[in-house]
Amino acid sequence: APGIHNVSFHRMQYRNPRETGIHMSPIHTWQIFKSYEDKDLPCPIAVVVGHHPMFYVSANMNPPIDVSEYDLAGALMNEPLRLVASETWGNDFLVPADAEIIIEGEILPKQREPEAPFGEWTRYYGPQRSNPVVKIRAITKRHDAIYLDNFIGHRDMDCLTLGWECTVFNRVREAVPTLIDVCLPYSGCCGYHAYISIKKTVPGQPINAALAALTWGFLKLVVIVDEDIDVFDEEAVWWAVATRVQAGQQVQIVKGIRGSILDPSIGETVEHDALIIDATKPFDKPFACPINIPEEYLTRVKLEDYVNLKVL
Amino acid sequence: APGIHNVSFHRMQYRNPRETGIHMSPIHTWQIFKSYEDKDLPCPIAVVVGHHPMFYVSANMNPPIDVSEYDLAGALMNEPLRLVASETWGNDFLVPADAEIIIEGEILPKQREPEAPFGEWTRYYGPQRSNPVVKIRAITKRHDAIYLDNFIGHRDMDCLTLGWECTVFNRVREAVPTLIDVCLPYSGCCGYHAYISIKKTVPGQPINAALAALTWGFLKLVVIVDEDIDVFDEEAVWWAVATRVQAGQQVQIVKGIRGSILDPSIGETVEHDALIIDATKPFDKPFACPINIPEEYLTRVKLEDYVNLKVL
Amino acid sequence: APGIHNVSFHRMQYRNPRETGIHMSPIHTWQIFKSYEDKDLPCPIAVVVGHHPMFYVSANMNPPIDVSEYDLAGALMNEPLRLVASETWGNDFLVPADAEIIIEGEILPKQREPEAPFGEWTRYYGPQRSNPVVKIRAITKRHDAIYLDNFIGHRDMDCLTLGWECTVFNRVREAVPTLIDVCLPYSGCCGYHAYISIKKTVPGQPINAALAALTWGFLKLVVIVDEDIDVFDEEAVWWAVATRVQAGQQVQIVKGIRGSILDPSIGETVEHDALIIDATKPFDKPFACPINIPEEYLTRVKLEDYVNLKVL
Amino acid sequence: APGIHNVSFHRMQYRNPRETGIHMSPIHTWQIFKSYEDKDLPCPIAVVVGHHPMFYVSANMNPPIDVSEYDLAGALMNEPLRLVASETWGNDFLVPADAEIIIEGEILPKQREPEAPFGEWTRYYGPQRSNPVVKIRAITKRHDAIYLDNFIGHRDMDCLTLGWECTVFNRVREAVPTLIDVCLPYSGCCGYHAYISIKKTVPGQPINAALAALTWGFLKLVVIVDEDIDVFDEEAVWWAVATRVQAGQQVQIVKGIRGSILDPSIGETVEHDALIIDATKPFDKPFACPINIPEEYLTRVKLEDYVNLKVL
Amino acid sequence: APGIHNVSFHRMQYRNPRETGIHMSPIHTWQIFKSYEDKDLPCPIAVVVGHHPMFYVSANMNPPIDVSEYDLAGALMNEPLRLVASETWGNDFLVPADAEIIIEGEILPKQREPEAPFGEWTRYYGPQRSNPVVKIRAITKRHDAIYLDNFIGHRDMDCLTLGWECTVFNRVREAVPTLIDVCLPYSGCCGYHAYISIKKTVPGQPINAALAALTWGFLKLVVIVDEDIDVFDEEAVWWAVATRVQAGQQVQIVKGIRGSILDPSIGETVEHDALIIDATKPFDKPFACPINIPEEYLTRVKLEDYVNLKVL
Amino acid sequence: APGIHNVSFHRMQYRNPRETGIHMSPIHTWQIFKSYEDKDLPCPIAVVVGHHPMFYVSANMNPPIDVSEYDLAGALMNEPLRLVASETWGNDFLVPADAEIIIEGEILPKQREPEAPFGEWTRYYGPQRSNPVVKIRAITKRHDAIYLDNFIGHRDMDCLTLGWECTVFNRVREAVPTLIDVCLPYSGCCGYHAYISIKKTVPGQPINAALAALTWGFLKLVVIVDEDIDVFDEEAVWWAVATRVQAGQQVQIVKGIRGSILDPSIGETVEHDALIIDATKPFDKPFACPINIPEEYLTRVKLEDYVNLKVL
Repeated sequence: APGIHNVSFHRMQYRNPRETGIHMSPIHTWQIFKSYEDKDLPCPIAVVVGHHPMFYVSANMNPPIDVSEYDLAGALMNEPLRLVASETWGNDFLVPADAEIIIEGEILPKQREPEAPFGEWTRYYGPQRSNPVVKIRAITKRHDAIYLDNFIGHRDMDCLTLGWECTVFNRVREAVPTLIDVCLPYSGCCGYHAYISIKKTVPGQPINAALAALTWGFLKLVVIVDEDIDVFDEEAVWWAVATRVQAGQQVQIVKGIRGSILDPSIGETVEHDALIIDATKPFDKPFACPINIPEEYLTRVKLEDYVNLKVL
Repeated sequence: APGIHNVSFHRMQYRNPRETGIHMSPIHTWQIFKSYEDKDLPCPIAVVVGHHPMFYVSANMNPPIDVSEYDLAGALMNEPLRLVASETWGNDFLVPADAEIIIEGEILPKQREPEAPFGEWTRYYGPQRSNPVVKIRAITKRHDAIYLDNFIGHRDMDCLTLGWECTVFNRVREAVPTLIDVCLPYSGCCGYHAYISIKKTVPGQPINAALAALTWGFLKLVVIVDEDIDVFDEEAVWWAVATRVQAGQQVQIVKGIRGSILDPSIGETVEHDALIIDATKPFDKPFACPINIPEEYLTRVKLEDYVNLKVL
Repeated sequence: APGIHNVSFHRMQYRNPRETGIHMSPIHTWQIFKSYEDKDLPCPIAVVVGHHPMFYVSANMNPPIDVSEYDLAGALMNEPLRLVASETWGNDFLVPADAEIIIEGEILPKQREPEAPFGEWTRYYGPQRSNPVVKIRAITKRHDAIYLDNFIGHRDMDCLTLGWECTVFNRVREAVPTLIDVCLPYSGCCGYHAYISIKKTVPGQPINAALAALTWGFLKLVVIVDEDIDVFDEEAVWWAVATRVQAGQQVQIVKGIRGSILDPSIGETVEHDALIIDATKPFDKPFACPINIPEEYLTRVKLEDYVNLKVL
Repeated sequence: APGIHNVSFHRMQYRNPRETGIHMSPIHTWQIFKSYEDKDLPCPIAVVVGHHPMFYVSANMNPPIDVSEYDLAGALMNEPLRLVASETWGNDFLVPADAEIIIEGEILPKQREPEAPFGEWTRYYGPQRSNPVVKIRAITKRHDAIYLDNFIGHRDMDCLTLGWECTVFNRVREAVPTLIDVCLPYSGCCGYHAYISIKKTVPGQPINAALAALTWGFLKLVVIVDEDIDVFDEEAVWWAVATRVQAGQQVQIVKGIRGSILDPSIGETVEHDALIIDATKPFDKPFACPINIPEEYLTRVKLEDYVNLKVL
Repeated sequence: APGIHNVSFHRMQYRNPRETGIHMSPIHTWQIFKSYEDKDLPCPIAVVVGHHPMFYVSANMNPPIDVSEYDLAGALMNEPLRLVASETWGNDFLVPADAEIIIEGEILPKQREPEAPFGEWTRYYGPQRSNPVVKIRAITKRHDAIYLDNFIGHRDMDCLTLGWECTVFNRVREAVPTLIDVCLPYSGCCGYHAYISIKKTVPGQPINAALAALTWGFLKLVVIVDEDIDVFDEEAVWWAVATRVQAGQQVQIVKGIRGSILDPSIGETVEHDALIIDATKPFDKPFACPINIPEEYLTRVKLEDYVNLKVL
Repeated sequence: APGIHNVSFHRMQYRNPRETGIHMSPIHTWQIFKSYEDKDLPCPIAVVVGHHPMFYVSANMNPPIDVSEYDLAGALMNEPLRLVASETWGNDFLVPADAEIIIEGEILPKQREPEAPFGEWTRYYGPQRSNPVVKIRAITKRHDAIYLDNFIGHRDMDCLTLGWECTVFNRVREAVPTLIDVCLPYSGCCGYHAYISIKKTVPGQPINAALAALTWGFLKLVVIVDEDIDVFDEEAVWWAVATRVQAGQQVQIVKGIRGSILDPSIGETVEHDALIIDATKPFDKPFACPINIPEEYLTRVKLEDYVNLKVL
């Protein structure tokens, strides 16, 4: 839509000094590209290398398609995102003014070239595919520009999950206002698994929370826990599963959700299944109490009464 | 939240000239009431009898809890909702200026009385329950005010479904941007069943659409159809099911969703199950073509060539 | 068997003045044809164009194979079906005496020709198939014979469903004597869906009824309702589903039933799945009561007391 | 209905010289008794002790309720069943003329007495229940009448299964005309399990056969086999299961069928589940061939060539 | 492992006087052969034709791979298995001293030839496969050696099942110490089905027993019964199923277990499904009592009091 | 059995200087105690406080009941376990000679006292139960004996899991000889969850491994992974689940296994369900390759070329 800019992450593989490949999941960027391609037009893009961290968080969020992610980035940065006319399209396509480097290019319509293997965020090499081609139109940069890199598939990439977590958080909170927290753990590639804690005030909310999370897109496993479990502590989440779940009643599988083309286990139809584990305690029934050493005992016991601290 | 007004439908049963009962599903109004009750305070409410039709549509929508439904009503009416200080709480609680009748009251904390049976929107008498009590504080009305009634449980109530349909529509569109239409048919009490048509551009979208719809709350049956099916034509929807579904692969059940306390079939835990029927054609595979009499044949055949129209 | 005539509906596609194609589901006609073909003999048939309406109802019933459907037609017409020797085979093959037109022919053994697409009763064009060929042997007709047509796949075809409904009715009544009514709705192509009402006098009867209906052959969805639901009112049936069903307990799928070759969703093995929805109320337990305006109130309220009828 | 007599087996427990208890499953006799009881009338019955064996087979068949089982008995005996006026009700109630002993009595309306334990056909003692009471009105007998007994729950009772097998046979044949044979094995109490062989000519027929069998009433396990398996050879049936079944695809469970009150495993709602095992080979695909010693080899090998037969 | 000899059954098909084929399931022998083949070495084997019956039972047991089955045979025979140097490999490969005939050979590495059809223990002809080749190196025999044969696929083979039953017995007893008996019935090819009786002292043990049995390898159906059922009486086992099972709760399917390549119903991945039927009575709840004629009555009734024994 | 000593862990709650309570799961100790109680005899026990670490590992293993765990302890310690006559029963009951402290006692027959709450290994307080009572008979100790404690329910308890892991390892290896490793993670209380890696050489082995693990007793979740996954790295295990599993095909639930009485989520029948996740790659099919930075690149890049190490 006019004035609506989509900001998102895409890996682009170098082909030659004026061309790269690009891989797009079938979401917003791909949808925009398709609307150009259907009219046989090249789709303008600007690669923003190096900007405010919140700019990148906004890039990883998935608001409704009619929300401008330039506005979203500004909201997250707590000041408007400063824009400037692009070299290639002038005021027809504004680009961030404060980026270290801007690479302007066009995704060419009706053109596909074999691309990849490439190390993806799943920590596998993705297979070769026929992907669109980006023609580079201009490169602008600041003096002494810093080249900001994200080593995809390695540990530092998980900073990026914040945007995805926000998206899942928003969707779940709309369905379950007493949502506490959402974690997309590194073990699940920061995208395939979600650990969600809620304060259960009405029976059934854990399933509503899970369904809302699954509407986002990549998730294949959702574990819902009570508010006493820290979702960022993976061991705590699985302890809740171990001690609060009977699989025959609290585990469900939803089949045939829109899947992720980079998922190595995905089949030909690119649909995946999702496992829902409701690891919350039953509502309004007594349940065992976790053990806990009272503060007064912890302070009463002094290590030096038992051990010569000097020899430690 | 301050400045955030919740607008919603509630049936209230007459107890005496200064008291009514009230039944609240465990969503926004109930949540607001609970926050007052937890502080042992009465919760102020204003009953708006007679206003612009869009005011009532907004009342039946379920936006996130931090959206003011006064604003929403204004948006739907295409002009700001005019407000005025209430008799009882003055500027602390503004009420619509253009209502026919306003009944101001307070839901009393920590007080419950037996209420009902009452004919509900499910078309059954709801069971007697311990429900909160509303103390009437003031009644204001226009000269010659029209008493607008909605005969709940009868055909005319389905005008109200528009707000619910909008809510489901918004949630599904966030998950599946190529959503076409949403119908909550009268056969499903305008609340338990949803017929949803989408343009399937990626495999799996029908399930994403269904999950998004189910996050709303009341739904127990969701049928997803292709864009060639009119969801407001119930016969067409079931024809799609009859001819495009193999149940073993295209029907799924999700169990234990937060249920509806007025559902006569609900069990003690007030959780319900939902049936998902994906009645869309397979993606990117040939499928039989519906029969269709070409326009040229229809016009070529003239009834008067076969029948003496005068004797009809 | 000798003296046993099978009467059934078959669409035949014109090939040339002396030949048509014919499509047979693998039931009685096909079975009879096979017994001729196995002996390398042509199978005699007589196409009856225009007869008593009950003749056609009998054609659409599926009694056991050893019941003569000439007798059945007579029973339905309340007088014996008058027969006459055929032109081609004389007394070896009797044909109805009172038909408008009789086309005598033979289905040729060991011969198949590509046939179709053809608009079928599913409201789709059926795919091209290798179908047997009918050689026309004789055509006889009354003076000024009326050519009776059934526009298959369009609304008027649903008069034909009566025979199918009778067949399902008989099978279900044998299993559940307290059967009330059976409807094969137009939405389900008058063949894929059945709505069945019973008076439940013993727990479990709804499932017995559903299984009995499924033995018939085409059904893919069976909804069982109580006697207070009118199965010919589609909205009422789905209202029962909305308010009397928890899918996890009252919905079942039976897989791999003998399917219908014209079903567009059928797979290669021509087996289909069936969905059973038991929408009856629980047995011998209290259940919510549908709302109902008492007669005395309805008569007490007079429209003219509220509205000036003259201006309507 | 007038002129329609129901013939069936019922065990009656002696209470005193003029009274017995009676246990009725909720089928035809019970239905007839209820129609009398609803009018507060006693229901006349005649106990037939000792008659033609086919009379008892007819008693164990379950034709539709409007078929007179006196006629059925005559059909099976190949001569009309000779009838005579009863002592108690004269021509209003005819009883078999050729019985050894006739006990005429009335099931009293609105009266129930504790009855049982009693050794039932399940080979368990059935629990005490409140059962109706039979008042004896008259006993007539032939000179030197033979008291014919059936030791229920022991091996000789399985002669009775013939009537049940006929009933299942008829229902299955209506659904699958290529039915070969039906066995209700003694291992399944001659009533809970059915082994059914068919000649599969169309895919899906095994499931149709199973559904038709399940409509009968008592069955909890149905195994469908090909025509090369003898259903009266239990070892052969399970060998077919062992070598032709993959449970994930060929085993199904139908839940909540009308159950048998004498089934020791039945729950409170008296509904049972049924297991369907399709042990037929796949249709139109190659399948391994059972081993078989060719006749010529069997005759060529002579035992006396290897063993001195005299010493055996 | 050094000093560890594997003893097992294998059918070998004659190719020429110095060569046979051999079929190996992917268990111990195959594993040993693979370890030779990976080093491009022939794998030495000795075919033992005619020995103590317990030798063959040991051959059919599947102890852990590091147990020498020569030791196991000795244990079963109650005396050490006497060994002797082989003709071909001397003391590097010891063979039983008391066999009637020993055929020494080598399974050749990296060589496969088409073999079969062959009548297998499933009672079907197994399909042609590419199987390894055995080169015969030497044949030694006793004077007047007896050629011991097992007519695989025919009744006498079921003596062999003892070894398999022992293996299953041991595994189940480890999981459920109150195991009573294990039968691998002839109906299940002595390998695909297991009937297991336990004394249930803790709820859940039937499933533990079933899982333990399934770890063995070939089983596709496991029925668990109480200690009052004789597992060697097939009719008794199915009677327990008929009267103690509700399929919806007591039947489970485990999918994708390592399957048997000779199973005619096995698919391409050679994985099979297993059906578990828990036919035990509920724990610690009353259950119907099987009928039983008290001893005193049986002795009191004398046949001669009723029948003239002379005329029998 | 005579000479067979069972060594196991039990928590005992102090009642008074001569009495404690004891909680026993229904396995070996309980079984031994029951055999005494059935004869109305007290069951002798010796509490071993402080011994060789391997002694405690043996205590946590579950070999078959006829294996002496004194022998097992010796095997693990690589020297025979030195024994000595007990104070109370002399040579009739030998106790470890090298323990720090020995508490001799008797579990009294037919006596139960309320015991607990007590902090258990599940990290919850176990509920009060009627547990047996131990009468203390004698306490012997070394000079300056060290009181060895295990703070159950806290991190240090996971050293104890080694015995359980050995038990599971042995059972799985018997079913799947190519087993690599077994981890019972702390997140699953070192008892409810198992992560198992195998080298899959035959399809189906993951399920065999899972079933074998489940025979042990406590497990409620088993994840099977390939040999490239380190089962002691919880993140790696769930990464395998995220990227190698489609839940609809690779997740199974087994219901009604013998459960753990300390499991807070256990129901009244003390049976639990188990979730099996087969996270292995498909057999003999290509699968995506995990990303991996080649050694040569890692060494070529030097941090000091990019960063002034002094300022770090």
